[in-house]
Amino acid sequence: MIRHPLKLGMVGGGEGAFIGAVHRMAAALDGEWRLAAGAFSTDAGKNTRTGDLLGLDPARVYATYEALLAGEAALPAGERIDAVAIVTPNHLHAPVAIAALTAGFHVFCEKPMAMNGGEARAIAAAAQASGKQFALAFTYSGYPLVEEARARVARGDFGAIRLVQVEYIQGWLSGSLDAQGNKQAEWRTDPARAGLGGCLGDIGTHAFHLAELVSGLRVETLSAELATHLPGRRLDDDVSALLRFEGGARGTLKATQVAAGEENGLRLRIHGERGGLEWAQMEPNTLTLRWLDRPAEILRAGGPGLGDSTTPLLRTPAGHPEGYIEAFANLYRGFARLLRGDSAQVPGVADGLRTMAFVEAMIANAKADTKWTEIVTGERR
Amino acid sequence: MIRHPLKLGMVGGGEGAFIGAVHRMAAALDGEWRLAAGAFSTDAGKNTRTGDLLGLDPARVYATYEALLAGEAALPAGERIDAVAIVTPNHLHAPVAIAALTAGFHVFCEKPMAMNGGEARAIAAAAQASGKQFALAFTYSGYPLVEEARARVARGDFGAIRLVQVEYIQGWLSGSLDAQGNKQAEWRTDPARAGLGGCLGDIGTHAFHLAELVSGLRVETLSAELATHLPGRRLDDDVSALLRFEGGARGTLKATQVAAGEENGLRLRIHGERGGLEWAQMEPNTLTLRWLDRPAEILRAGGPGLGDSTTPLLRTPAGHPEGYIEAFANLYRGFARLLRGDSAQVPGVADGLRTMAFVEAMIANAKADTKWTEIVTGERR
Amino acid sequence: MIRHPLKLGMVGGGEGAFIGAVHRMAAALDGEWRLAAGAFSTDAGKNTRTGDLLGLDPARVYATYEALLAGEAALPAGERIDAVAIVTPNHLHAPVAIAALTAGFHVFCEKPMAMNGGEARAIAAAAQASGKQFALAFTYSGYPLVEEARARVARGDFGAIRLVQVEYIQGWLSGSLDAQGNKQAEWRTDPARAGLGGCLGDIGTHAFHLAELVSGLRVETLSAELATHLPGRRLDDDVSALLRFEGGARGTLKATQVAAGEENGLRLRIHGERGGLEWAQMEPNTLTLRWLDRPAEILRAGGPGLGDSTTPLLRTPAGHPEGYIEAFANLYRGFARLLRGDSAQVPGVADGLRTMAFVEAMIANAKADTKWTEIVTGERR
Amino acid sequence: MIRHPLKLGMVGGGEGAFIGAVHRMAAALDGEWRLAAGAFSTDAGKNTRTGDLLGLDPARVYATYEALLAGEAALPAGERIDAVAIVTPNHLHAPVAIAALTAGFHVFCEKPMAMNGGEARAIAAAAQASGKQFALAFTYSGYPLVEEARARVARGDFGAIRLVQVEYIQGWLSGSLDAQGNKQAEWRTDPARAGLGGCLGDIGTHAFHLAELVSGLRVETLSAELATHLPGRRLDDDVSALLRFEGGARGTLKATQVAAGEENGLRLRIHGERGGLEWAQMEPNTLTLRWLDRPAEILRAGGPGLGDSTTPLLRTPAGHPEGYIEAFANLYRGFARLLRGDSAQVPGVADGLRTMAFVEAMIANAKADTKWTEIVTGERR
Repeated sequence: MIRHPLKLGMVGGGEGAFIGAVHRMAAALDGEWRLAAGAFSTDAGKNTRTGDLLGLDPARVYATYEALLAGEAALPAGERIDAVAIVTPNHLHAPVAIAALTAGFHVFCEKPMAMNGGEARAIAAAAQASGKQFALAFTYSGYPLVEEARARVARGDFGAIRLVQVEYIQGWLSGSLDAQGNKQAEWRTDPARAGLGGCLGDIGTHAFHLAELVSGLRVETLSAELATHLPGRRLDDDVSALLRFEGGARGTLKATQVAAGEENGLRLRIHGERGGLEWAQMEPNTLTLRWLDRPAEILRAGGPGLGDSTTPLLRTPAGHPEGYIEAFANLYRGFARLLRGDSAQVPGVADGLRTMAFVEAMIANAKADTKWTEIVTGERR
Repeated sequence: MIRHPLKLGMVGGGEGAFIGAVHRMAAALDGEWRLAAGAFSTDAGKNTRTGDLLGLDPARVYATYEALLAGEAALPAGERIDAVAIVTPNHLHAPVAIAALTAGFHVFCEKPMAMNGGEARAIAAAAQASGKQFALAFTYSGYPLVEEARARVARGDFGAIRLVQVEYIQGWLSGSLDAQGNKQAEWRTDPARAGLGGCLGDIGTHAFHLAELVSGLRVETLSAELATHLPGRRLDDDVSALLRFEGGARGTLKATQVAAGEENGLRLRIHGERGGLEWAQMEPNTLTLRWLDRPAEILRAGGPGLGDSTTPLLRTPAGHPEGYIEAFANLYRGFARLLRGDSAQVPGVADGLRTMAFVEAMIANAKADTKWTEIVTGERR
Repeated sequence: MIRHPLKLGMVGGGEGAFIGAVHRMAAALDGEWRLAAGAFSTDAGKNTRTGDLLGLDPARVYATYEALLAGEAALPAGERIDAVAIVTPNHLHAPVAIAALTAGFHVFCEKPMAMNGGEARAIAAAAQASGKQFALAFTYSGYPLVEEARARVARGDFGAIRLVQVEYIQGWLSGSLDAQGNKQAEWRTDPARAGLGGCLGDIGTHAFHLAELVSGLRVETLSAELATHLPGRRLDDDVSALLRFEGGARGTLKATQVAAGEENGLRLRIHGERGGLEWAQMEPNTLTLRWLDRPAEILRAGGPGLGDSTTPLLRTPAGHPEGYIEAFANLYRGFARLLRGDSAQVPGVADGLRTMAFVEAMIANAKADTKWTEIVTGERR
Repeated sequence: MIRHPLKLGMVGGGEGAFIGAVHRMAAALDGEWRLAAGAFSTDAGKNTRTGDLLGLDPARVYATYEALLAGEAALPAGERIDAVAIVTPNHLHAPVAIAALTAGFHVFCEKPMAMNGGEARAIAAAAQASGKQFALAFTYSGYPLVEEARARVARGDFGAIRLVQVEYIQGWLSGSLDAQGNKQAEWRTDPARAGLGGCLGDIGTHAFHLAELVSGLRVETLSAELATHLPGRRLDDDVSALLRFEGGARGTLKATQVAAGEENGLRLRIHGERGGLEWAQMEPNTLTLRWLDRPAEILRAGGPGLGDSTTPLLRTPAGHPEGYIEAFANLYRGFARLLRGDSAQVPGVADGLRTMAFVEAMIANAKADTKWTEIVTGERR
């Protein structure tokens, strides 16, 4: 039986945008997806140029996301898109996602899920009502050695977990880019388009998601500090928190976008009774395991010692580095599996609700003088 | 104007093969290529399954490369493939490449170019006669920071070059995989399918190519040691050489596939009068520059300080690691540019002839008791 | 004029102790000090054996510190010791230091300064009254590249400081060594001998001291979490804090002794408007500088680019690693300079008072439900 | 029984010299040695100043080495020096060592042993005749993890050894320091004071010594390239060699002093049938073990997994870095043990003869057009 690629429509991601292009590469890498339609920009010229450059049929390059959903829904089943990728600024996530789900399309949405918890819950309700899949781009969970780390903690290699340290250190907002016309910086620091959190929503959520995912533990309460170092900036650009996990583990979370000179330093360390692990996104093919009573071990993508849930996430032999796009492609591949009826681990509604609850708890605590604030969500993923 | 992807036909790369899948991902990544036809395996079942899995029209999954070339040539111009990717064992490079070029197709061929210098020259002649493009998968030259290194040496940052150290350290042939049914190992150690060199042809050529490319200098003479450590193995698995470059620089080259526990350690160091550089394939997003009279600098993919020839080779901001597939995709993107009439740096005929001359000089010297052997090629690329 | 070494008497440090031996090596390294007397252990046999092994005149191996002070004070001026090194558990710091200062001896004391702030102030008063020098073993401040970091922040290389991240990660108390007869572990987890803090006093103080020293900024308020992960342990073994510095910089501090598998991971990162620095004690000869608009630089002990206050702290050319003992020896060399009437930067009374105030603020905050607690000390060093 | 330090006399090492100060620190570190006499410089003023600064009795600061030997020999047995440290340029090693041994003193000599093989054999004969100890400063063999590496190879952890790669990369002679009055550079490039080899004798011997020591294998034949990159320089500054070891292992050796920007990059890699190791002097507290079929392991000074012959070479717990001076001190401590009648591994006469034979074979081969030259020495150490 011939395995035809699934068809993707994209909302956002016109020329000049960063993350739209990443989605397209990630979707293309494994041949599971073909870009078939788009509403890339509200600027008509840019929209057309983007569609042409991508080789799309001009009839499927739509002026608005509403037009895209309507136009595609009107096509025959074998021709219309299977899913919508939402790569817009945050304020459009909820309206586009809800409309797409309601129109019967699966959705692959950028993070954070929404502007706030209320919007997130509305998306969740729409997903539930539609029966369609909703995937969320917590990209870093797509790295093979993140899965290896998760699996090893889960099977108890380190004993009961005591410490979780997660950090996400960037420097690109050290200057006032947002006041100088940089589009990425502009919307990310604008409460009307970014939502409740600045750095908190943009990368703090990644850090939190990774910490809970790999530790297998939920944060119960947190104590937060949000700072805005650049005068005139309207959202936080620097986040710190103390975390108390279920079962007694203690954590720290640091996320900042004003660490001048730093790139994209997402790094996780977890320690239990017998040892611990360390993983850093900028060298993603290495996972360091340290032990109380024997030498540290270096697990490597493609090397010996990896578990059964890790190896399917790899494409090349050891020493042929895979990176960010490959991790992203693992999410798109998993999303394709879900749509084909296979099982796969892809971040989704539960992860979105949980990270929005984290954002709201952080903001509440940062404003208060009480030390600890509970994270309130529904049931566990 | 809509930019349609170019169409690729593939010879070799049936299920289970490593490098065919890499070519497909590399070709797909930037949307410049679409796989349209294939002769993946001489095993009919495997051939069909591969085509089906890749979503190909069964009519364009051919039993042999001859059938592929004939079938595609018979299609209308707008429909037929633009180029053939050759991902077979080495002994088929020359026959397939010559037939494809002669049939009017461009060719993207795996390295080494051929079994020996004679075959390489025959391909060169066919390319010349056909006027078609011939690209060669010296993948590592596709890394952005390799280009940065080359450009910096070329513009004289380090002064006259004195030292070139290149090494390519693998361990995967430390056991007798070739005697245990591992297909990759089998053909690579079989003179009838691999050609003159084992490790020498497989990875020694990569090391040599990188050393000449980045230094901008030709090796004039060399002194070689070829060893075969596994009893019964029919080709070398361990290579060492002293190199004398034009202008007086001295070099060392080490390539081995029996360094048990090592992965894919291609590493280049070059030093001149005022400083030097170091690049390692397993951490490809970093280029270290050292200076006689000031602190070392760390150039990073996506970071500040990169030259104009480097940045177009990048897809993501600093700290979002790109890897082996992305480097490979840079070759496919460059190859597409050549076919569209734009200029691009892609390894080709000259690189192939030069590396085959290196292989022949190494083998001649290793057998002799004279210390230095000249590398004899035609003109410089 | 012949430069005779100064004479040191040691209290504590009998066979089996760790830090006493380090003091002796650090004092000996540069020939500035000669060990001349000791009261190494209250165990008479151990005391004698230690003295013999160290080649001391048995008449100057004393049964108690009181005997040592009396005995040495009774010797002629040119013969008696110049200073007392206190390398006992914490509960003896104050009594020995006060007695030694009062008896007219200079003091080099292990950290933390004392059991609590009250004792620390009593030492300070004794030092003030005696006019003698009091040095405190904040060893890590003796590393050359820590001084380089401090000097570069002080001269404004990075602009105004925004972020300070300090961590001190150990794992040696991951098991219940303290319940199993390990002497180091026993007294460090015994409130009667260690004082107010466990991990907090032992290594949290190092982290805090380094952060303030290098940033040149005082922490105004902090929010703390103290945990004890091992059942039955009587003092904290895991410390986290959020820090607010004067001028608006935000900080995090993490110190733990239960990160199983970790060694001695003291690490400092500071970022300002234009760039930042990173230093890690386990690779102390490297200082990384990152910049907003140019490549990162690697400063190396002995390499180009170091300032005038750094180079006197080095003993060997670049690439000949110096380590912990050499850093310690820099404190002993500076202490000798002070005694000879030269100027030198050596941690002392002010650092002791400041770090004890930090300990007290941490404990107060950890018990309270208010978020921020002020650190109250006297004037700045 | 009181353990008095041994007494050392030093020849060479006046103010401004590098290695003399290192010897003094290394000898002092463990309290095993006390500097008691010296003939530091033929410049009388410098000689006196050095003695004074070191706190020596002026009567034991001698104008010449002959005077030192005569003067000390005339002192009572309990007072005179036990051994002579020779830290002069190479041309004085043989005369001073032979005189000292003949006068009944043990000798600790800088490397290379002598100007050439003839001188080395003369020293060997004098040592033999005198019955005194002769230690040679192959400092790098004093690192604890070098011993660990040696022991693991020796006990067969990696199976039969196939590959040995050693390199020693410096850059300090990249400019013409020797023509600009730098004393270190001057004598090291002067055949009358340095001997047969420049870079070859100075650091090539270290590399060769380490390779044979850790591999436990002798080099049988070699093929060499010696280059001098700086115009007017009279000795080699850049060395490369192919090595054939007994038993079939193949090796490469690279030593250079013109790799601009490099520090002191001595690095050893050894691979056998089942795995391999890597050690680098600039991060000496780490030894990496790689395995064919399981994850790499990181052995750390002070950490778990070290053998019984390694731990006595350590002074501090894991994570408290020890460096070059500590490695050197291990040689002085071993030398003291030998003098006290205990056993110890300290490089000596056999290592000196062997490395001089290496130098002579390298020079012979580099001049010839035959590919392989045998290293001819007497019996194995």
